[in-house]
Amino acid sequence: MAFTLFGAKSSCSTATHIALAEAGADYDFRSVDTAAGDQRKPEFLKLNPKGRVPVLVTPHGALTENVALLLYVAQAFPQANLAPLDDPFALARLNAFNAYLSSTVHVAHAHKIRGSRWTDDVSAIESMKAKVQQNMTDCAAIIEHEYLAGPWVLGAAFSIGDCYLHVITNWMLGDGVDLKQFPKLTTHHEAMLKRPAVQKVSAQLG
Amino acid sequence: MAFTLFGAKSSCSTATHIALAEAGADYDFRSVDTAAGDQRKPEFLKLNPKGRVPVLVTPHGALTENVALLLYVAQAFPQANLAPLDDPFALARLNAFNAYLSSTVHVAHAHKIRGSRWTDDVSAIESMKAKVQQNMTDCAAIIEHEYLAGPWVLGAAFSIGDCYLHVITNWMLGDGVDLKQFPKLTTHHEAMLKRPAVQKVSAQLG
Repeated sequence: MAFTLFGAKSSCSTATHIALAEAGADYDFRSVDTAAGDQRKPEFLKLNPKGRVPVLVTPHGALTENVALLLYVAQAFPQANLAPLDDPFALARLNAFNAYLSSTVHVAHAHKIRGSRWTDDVSAIESMKAKVQQNMTDCAAIIEHEYLAGPWVLGAAFSIGDCYLHVITNWMLGDGVDLKQFPKLTTHHEAMLKRPAVQKVSAQLG
Repeated sequence: MAFTLFGAKSSCSTATHIALAEAGADYDFRSVDTAAGDQRKPEFLKLNPKGRVPVLVTPHGALTENVALLLYVAQAFPQANLAPLDDPFALARLNAFNAYLSSTVHVAHAHKIRGSRWTDDVSAIESMKAKVQQNMTDCAAIIEHEYLAGPWVLGAAFSIGDCYLHVITNWMLGDGVDLKQFPKLTTHHEAMLKRPAVQKVSAQLG
């Protein structure tokens, strides 16, 4: 296999996983049991000292961080047309969307289950959980009104942004966001579920 | 002016600000008073509904998010050699570094001053502040040992990653990280302060 993706079910690694499947890449998937803490074991830390998924092992070495991985997949498989590679402004808009999902929306979601990253106080962790639904709803509104042209993020063209957004929409549903308030997001979620690549990834995640 | 950057002193917008100066770009800088909340006023929200700096107004429209802006500046000014644009793997390594600074290190720092994003509980906000020094020290160790080849992030070649790292190193100093533990980061910080572009940006920030 040319590529090996280390990821986990319900993790943001699914964004890169879907992108690989959409690109028609020859890849192997290795499931990391993050609930058991396997991402913090010495063997995994050799691959990624940050102790996180995703990690994509390429013929040139290991890469991390969804925002970087998604662009890399788009560049490695240009025939799949997963990003506007020849238009720096359009590409920057798409990278900004992915960066927003990574640095704001993922972080808002993470306060539900990863609060111990930022405090040692048990009651503080509980108070963070209480704000997740509202924060994720606010993020959904930004995505619906500012980023999601519809039916795909960029409009008619499917892209790496859609691969990432699908992970986020699934998280929003789990975080209690009333997705019916956001018709474009609802349509996007349903359209993604029908794509063969998404179905292939779901089967691999089990 | 071809570009207008909206940013703030001590903000992550300084990463893109330094990149523009390093690229020799023709740009105008507009200071946003984030302490006074100007980034949440209607006029600014028209430019960036997320209510954050940086925003870079280009001839094609407005762009946000440092990770995207840094790559955009590198692509818009290829003669400045601010990124390995012709090597997708090397570029992905650099993008991953910037993404790590944005989604992990910036977020770790933000729990000192922006805790109200993630909780409404005053005592929880205080407990978050208590963990910032340790989290930023952990991030410094990752950067020192895994990312910073030295003297610059990529080794001999200066890049957009250095522009971003300089902001982060300044934050680390303010967050109580003992930078002397990290000789490559210390050398990087001192080398950045000597660059004409960094001195130009400091003068513009006042």
